[in-house]
Amino acid sequence: MHFASDNSGPVPQQVLDALTKANQGYAMAYGSDAEMEAVTAKIREIFEAPEAAVYLVATGTAANVLALSTLTQPWQTVFCAGPAHINMDECNAPEFFMGGAKLTLATKADKMTPQDLRAAIEGEETRGVHGPQRGPVSLTQVTEFGTVYSLEELRALCAVAQEYDLPVHMDGARFTNALVSLGCTPADMTWKAGINALSFGGTKNGCMGVEAVIFFDPKHAQEFEYRRKRGAQLFSKHRYLSAQMLAYLTDDLWLENANRANAKTAILAEGLRAVGAKFSHPPQANMIFAALPRAKHQALFEAGAAYHLWDGVLEGPAEELITARFVCDWSIPEEEIQKFLSLL
Amino acid sequence: MHFASDNSGPVPQQVLDALTKANQGYAMAYGSDAEMEAVTAKIREIFEAPEAAVYLVATGTAANVLALSTLTQPWQTVFCAGPAHINMDECNAPEFFMGGAKLTLATKADKMTPQDLRAAIEGEETRGVHGPQRGPVSLTQVTEFGTVYSLEELRALCAVAQEYDLPVHMDGARFTNALVSLGCTPADMTWKAGINALSFGGTKNGCMGVEAVIFFDPKHAQEFEYRRKRGAQLFSKHRYLSAQMLAYLTDDLWLENANRANAKTAILAEGLRAVGAKFSHPPQANMIFAALPRAKHQALFEAGAAYHLWDGVLEGPAEELITARFVCDWSIPEEEIQKFLSLL
Amino acid sequence: MHFASDNSGPVPQQVLDALTKANQGYAMAYGSDAEMEAVTAKIREIFEAPEAAVYLVATGTAANVLALSTLTQPWQTVFCAGPAHINMDECNAPEFFMGGAKLTLATKADKMTPQDLRAAIEGEETRGVHGPQRGPVSLTQVTEFGTVYSLEELRALCAVAQEYDLPVHMDGARFTNALVSLGCTPADMTWKAGINALSFGGTKNGCMGVEAVIFFDPKHAQEFEYRRKRGAQLFSKHRYLSAQMLAYLTDDLWLENANRANAKTAILAEGLRAVGAKFSHPPQANMIFAALPRAKHQALFEAGAAYHLWDGVLEGPAEELITARFVCDWSIPEEEIQKFLSLL
Amino acid sequence: MHFASDNSGPVPQQVLDALTKANQGYAMAYGSDAEMEAVTAKIREIFEAPEAAVYLVATGTAANVLALSTLTQPWQTVFCAGPAHINMDECNAPEFFMGGAKLTLATKADKMTPQDLRAAIEGEETRGVHGPQRGPVSLTQVTEFGTVYSLEELRALCAVAQEYDLPVHMDGARFTNALVSLGCTPADMTWKAGINALSFGGTKNGCMGVEAVIFFDPKHAQEFEYRRKRGAQLFSKHRYLSAQMLAYLTDDLWLENANRANAKTAILAEGLRAVGAKFSHPPQANMIFAALPRAKHQALFEAGAAYHLWDGVLEGPAEELITARFVCDWSIPEEEIQKFLSLL
Repeated sequence: MHFASDNSGPVPQQVLDALTKANQGYAMAYGSDAEMEAVTAKIREIFEAPEAAVYLVATGTAANVLALSTLTQPWQTVFCAGPAHINMDECNAPEFFMGGAKLTLATKADKMTPQDLRAAIEGEETRGVHGPQRGPVSLTQVTEFGTVYSLEELRALCAVAQEYDLPVHMDGARFTNALVSLGCTPADMTWKAGINALSFGGTKNGCMGVEAVIFFDPKHAQEFEYRRKRGAQLFSKHRYLSAQMLAYLTDDLWLENANRANAKTAILAEGLRAVGAKFSHPPQANMIFAALPRAKHQALFEAGAAYHLWDGVLEGPAEELITARFVCDWSIPEEEIQKFLSLL
Repeated sequence: MHFASDNSGPVPQQVLDALTKANQGYAMAYGSDAEMEAVTAKIREIFEAPEAAVYLVATGTAANVLALSTLTQPWQTVFCAGPAHINMDECNAPEFFMGGAKLTLATKADKMTPQDLRAAIEGEETRGVHGPQRGPVSLTQVTEFGTVYSLEELRALCAVAQEYDLPVHMDGARFTNALVSLGCTPADMTWKAGINALSFGGTKNGCMGVEAVIFFDPKHAQEFEYRRKRGAQLFSKHRYLSAQMLAYLTDDLWLENANRANAKTAILAEGLRAVGAKFSHPPQANMIFAALPRAKHQALFEAGAAYHLWDGVLEGPAEELITARFVCDWSIPEEEIQKFLSLL
Repeated sequence: MHFASDNSGPVPQQVLDALTKANQGYAMAYGSDAEMEAVTAKIREIFEAPEAAVYLVATGTAANVLALSTLTQPWQTVFCAGPAHINMDECNAPEFFMGGAKLTLATKADKMTPQDLRAAIEGEETRGVHGPQRGPVSLTQVTEFGTVYSLEELRALCAVAQEYDLPVHMDGARFTNALVSLGCTPADMTWKAGINALSFGGTKNGCMGVEAVIFFDPKHAQEFEYRRKRGAQLFSKHRYLSAQMLAYLTDDLWLENANRANAKTAILAEGLRAVGAKFSHPPQANMIFAALPRAKHQALFEAGAAYHLWDGVLEGPAEELITARFVCDWSIPEEEIQKFLSLL
Repeated sequence: MHFASDNSGPVPQQVLDALTKANQGYAMAYGSDAEMEAVTAKIREIFEAPEAAVYLVATGTAANVLALSTLTQPWQTVFCAGPAHINMDECNAPEFFMGGAKLTLATKADKMTPQDLRAAIEGEETRGVHGPQRGPVSLTQVTEFGTVYSLEELRALCAVAQEYDLPVHMDGARFTNALVSLGCTPADMTWKAGINALSFGGTKNGCMGVEAVIFFDPKHAQEFEYRRKRGAQLFSKHRYLSAQMLAYLTDDLWLENANRANAKTAILAEGLRAVGAKFSHPPQANMIFAALPRAKHQALFEAGAAYHLWDGVLEGPAEELITARFVCDWSIPEEEIQKFLSLL
C-alpha cells in the first residue's frame, strides 16, 4: 500500500534487461554510444520532430535547470506557477544554473491561466533596465497537484508567451501520465501547442534515473552540450542512460506504465470518493489529493498504508478533515489497491 | 516642481567643499584614507556601536547585494516584501551576488507584518533539503511606498526572525528620512531593534554616490572585504567616497537634509489633501502616493510639474482617479512647492 | 584491443546483479535507502574512519566540483597541477560550482612537488584583498599521466598545505588503481597522509556511473547536502547508485578490478618496452604513455587497436616517434593484450 | 616623493570645477543626463567611431569584468598575460562576473607575443566539450610592467585572435599613458588594430573614480546595460560620473595629464639610470621597475620617498639589488622628482 511517491518504486524487467544487454564490451563514451543514436531516432519519431535535439541527463532537476538555463539570460525571470518543482523542490538549482535569473510566480494554483500569465508578464519590464527582464514560461505537465493542462489550455498559454516572444519550457517529469490522460500525441502536447523545450521524464515512470531534454529547435544544441558538461551531467558510460531510455520507449513500455499508474489511481480515487473523501483537485493522472477524517488516516497508517499528509499532522481532533497526497507508480499491484480500499 | 525622485537632485555645498578639501596631495588608497577613519568613528558614535564594521560602496544596489550576500548562503531564501528594491529594481543583482539564493515575498504590501513574516518563514524548509533553506529577513525603511516602520513594528519583525535564528538586514536607502520621521536614535532603529546589517543611504539624501554598509557584529568584516573587491566596488581613490560621507555626517547635515525633505513633503501632502487627493499610503517621510483626477495630472504636467504616474497613463477619461508618486529631495525650494500647490 | 579509456568498458556481473537485487518493491528515496546505509558503513570501515560523511553522486566531475565547492570560498584559488582533470576536462564546472573561485596551476607536470606547491601558495595573497585568497589543494591520484604519488609525496604535500592551514582534496577517479599500486591502506593514502576530502571513483573501475564523496571531517556534511541537491545530483531512486557502490565494495571487487587493470597494463608496458617504446612517465597504474614510430601506430590502428595519440597525428614521417596513451580497464581480456603484443 | 601608485593622487581643478558646474538643480538619472550625451559624442569623435557604444562605471575592475562578461560565455576561457590585472588584482571578479569562465595565462611576461597567444589558443579546445572553449583575448595597455605594446604588436595579436574568430578586449587603465607614449591616435591603438572592446581608464590619470567601457560594435550595447545594472554599477546620480569624464576629455586634459606623468617618469628613469639602476623592463610610460642596492632603498625610504619594493624586502645584505616599482601620476611636482634625484 505504497502511495508515497512515484520516485521510490522499482523498474520493469525490460529496463534491467536492457542494462544487461548494453553491458557488452566497449562502447563510445559521452553520448556517442549506439544506444543513444537509437534513442534520438526514437524520440524524433515519437514526437514527429525530425530535427529535434535530444540529450539525456540523470535527474529531473538537471533536466529542468539545464533546459531553462539554455533559454534564459541571467537578467531575466522565468514565469511559472508557485507550486512548480523549479520553485519549491530544487533548492535554488534553477537560480544557480541560470546565473541568478529569478522566477516570477504567476499563480498560487496548480495551473496558470492565460490571464495569470499575461498579468505576470505585464508586471515585469515596467522599469526599464532596473527590474528583471521577461524570460521563458515554464509549465508543469502533470502539475504538482496531479492535474493535467488540456491541449486548449496549453495552446492558450503558449499563445500568450508567443505574443511577447518568450520561449516555453515544459517540465514533463510526469509527461507520459499526462499524455495518456489526454489521449493525444506527444507532438500535440508539445511543439504543436507551442512548447520549445521539454524535460521528458523517465525516472518516475519506470527508469532508474534518466530524463531526456528535448529542444524542438536544434539551434540550442551546441550551447546545451557545453552546459551539460559544465553542469557535471555528461556521463562517460553514457550507454547505461541510453539503454534505460531506449527500453522505456520500446514496445510502448512508457505508455503502458503510465496507463497502468493512471488506471490504478483512478480505482483509488473512486474508492476514496465512495467513502466521501473530498478532492482538492480533480483526479486526472497518477497523483491525487483527497481529504479524509484524521481518524481514518490514523487507521490507514496503522494498517501499513504509506502516503503523505499534505495540510495537517497526525495529532488532533479525530473528525477533522486532512488532505493527503496519494501517488500510484507503474508497479503497484492491484491487490494493494484493493487491500487499501477494503481498509477504507 | 520636480517631484520625480530624490535620486536626481544636486548635493549640498558642504559635499562639494569636502571633495575640494580632500583633494590635497596623495592619500592612501582602497579605504585606508584618513577620511575613512573619521567616517568609521563617526558612524560608530552615531549608532552607539563601537565595534561596528563600516564600509563604503557607491550605489544602493551594491550596498544591498554585498550586505545580503555576506549574510546568505546560496541555497537559502531572503524574506522581503514584494515591492522591495531588491526584488523590483535591481535586475537580479541580489540573486547574482548571492550565488543564486532567492527571494521569498512575504507580502504584496509595503510593509511585512510579523504574521506575514512568520507565514513566509514557515512556508519554507518544509521539504528538507529539497526546497530553499531559510535565510535573512530584509526590511526596507522608508518602505517603497513612503511609509515608515514604527519601532514596535521593527522589533516585532526582528523578534520573529530571531525565533528562527535568522539575521535581519535593513535597506536604508532613505534611512535618515525614516529616522527623523520616527524621531528616534539610529541605535533604536537598528541594532537595538534587532537589525544586524544596514545599507545606510547617502545618495538620495545629499551625496553624489555613496552608501555605507554597517555590520553591527564585526565578525562579518573580513568576508565583506573580499566580497566588495570581488564585487568591483573597492575604490582606489576611496577618499572621495569618504569625504562625501564625512561631510554628510558632519554638523547634522544628514539630519537637516532629511528633515527638510520630509517637511516639504508634508506641505505637499497637506496641499494635495486639501484638494481632495486620496492617499494610498499615509505620508510619513519624503515620498507620497496620491490619487488625482486625470485632468488634474494633465494640467500639472503642462504647467511643468515632474513626477511619475503610478497606476495609469495620461490618456483616458478626465475624471478618473490616477495615483501618482511625489518625492521631495532635500534641495527642493519652498517656492516650487508653493507654485505647485497654487496650480492644484 | 581497446586501450582508449577506462571509461568505456562494461561493468562486472556483480554490479548488474546488485541492481536486480535492489529492484524489489519500494525504497526510501534520496539516499535514505538501506543500501546507502550499508555503503556508508562499508566505506567508514574500509577507510578506518567511523565519523566520515559519505555521499554518492553520478559523475566524476560532480564529485570533484561538489567536494571542492564545499571547501572553497568564491574569492579563493585552488592549487592543482596543470594537467588536473578539474583544470583540463571539466569545462569550467569547478569555477561554476565554486562561484567563480579560480585554479592556480602549481606545475605543468603530472605531480606537484612540495616546492611547487609552496611556491604557488606563496605566489598568492601577496596583494591583500586584491588578489585571489589561498584555498584548498587538490591532488590527483592516479595522476593524469598514470603516475602515482607515493605516501611520502602525499604526506609532504599535505604538510605544506597544513602549514598554511589549507584543506586538501584528492581527485581519486582512479583511487583504487593507485591504492593497489602502492599496496597501502585507504587510510594511509588519505586521512593519515592529511587528505580532508576525497572523490572516490567507481565509474572507471567497474561501476556504471557512481562516485563517492568522502569528508573525513563530518562538519562538511550539512553544507554538502545542500550543494548536492542544488547541484542537481541528488537522485530520487538513489538505491541504484547505492547498489552499484555496495557491489563494488563487496568481496574486494574494487581491489580485484584495479589489480586486474594494473596487471594487464604492466604486461602491456613490458611488451612496449621490449620493442623499444619510450615512456614519458613511469608505468605505475593502469594508464601509460609510450612513444612508438608513427608507422607502428598506423599498423596497430589498421589491425584494430584503439587508443589515443597524445602528441601528434597519424599523418607524417613514418619513423617519427609519437607518444600514445594506453589505458587498460578491469575487463580487458588477456588475449587482447597478447594479440596486441604480437602485433608489436 | 610619492611614487607608490597613480591611484592615490588628487584630481585636477578642472574635474572639481566640472562637479560644481554639474551640481545645478535636477538632472535625469541613470545615464540620461546631458553630460553623458556629451561624453558619448566626445568619445565617438576622439575614437573616430561614430557608432561606438559608450558606458561609464566607477572602478577599473568594474570596467574590465563587465566588458569581458559581455564578450564571454561561461564555458569559455579568456587569453591574457599572467601579470594582467584581471588575473592578479581583481579577487576573482572576472570569474564571478563571467559566470565561472576562466583565464588562460599565455605568458608569464608583461606582454604576450603572437606566438604565445597562438600556442595558448591551440592549447584549448583540444578535448571537444570537455575543456574550456576559446573565448576573448584581453590585452593590457600600458602593461602591468610599464611597457607599451607597439601598434605592430597590437595588430599582430589581434590578427591571431581574428584567425580564431575571437574578440579582443583592451584593459586600458593607463590607456592615455600608452597613447601619448606611442604618439598615435586612439583609433590606431584600438579598433584599427582590431580591438573590439576597451576599458578606458580615467581614475589613474586624473579622475576621482570613473572609467568608460567602449564597444566599437554597438551590438553589445543592450546586453551591457543589463549587465551594468545587475553588476550594481548603474549610478542614479550619474551626472557626477559624466562630469568627471567630460572634464577629463575637454581641452586635452587627459592627454596633458598623461604627457606630464610620462615626462616625469622619464626624468626619474634617467636619474635612476645615471646612478646605475638596472631596469627589468624598458621605461615607456609612467611606471618603471628599477633595481637598486638595498642600502639605497633604505636611505630613500628614510628620506621620505614612497614606492613599492617589487622583489625583496627591506631587511638583508646592503649591496643586494632589489627591484622597486616607481609610478608617477599626473600631479607630481617636478621639485619632488628633483629632490628624489638629488637623494640618489
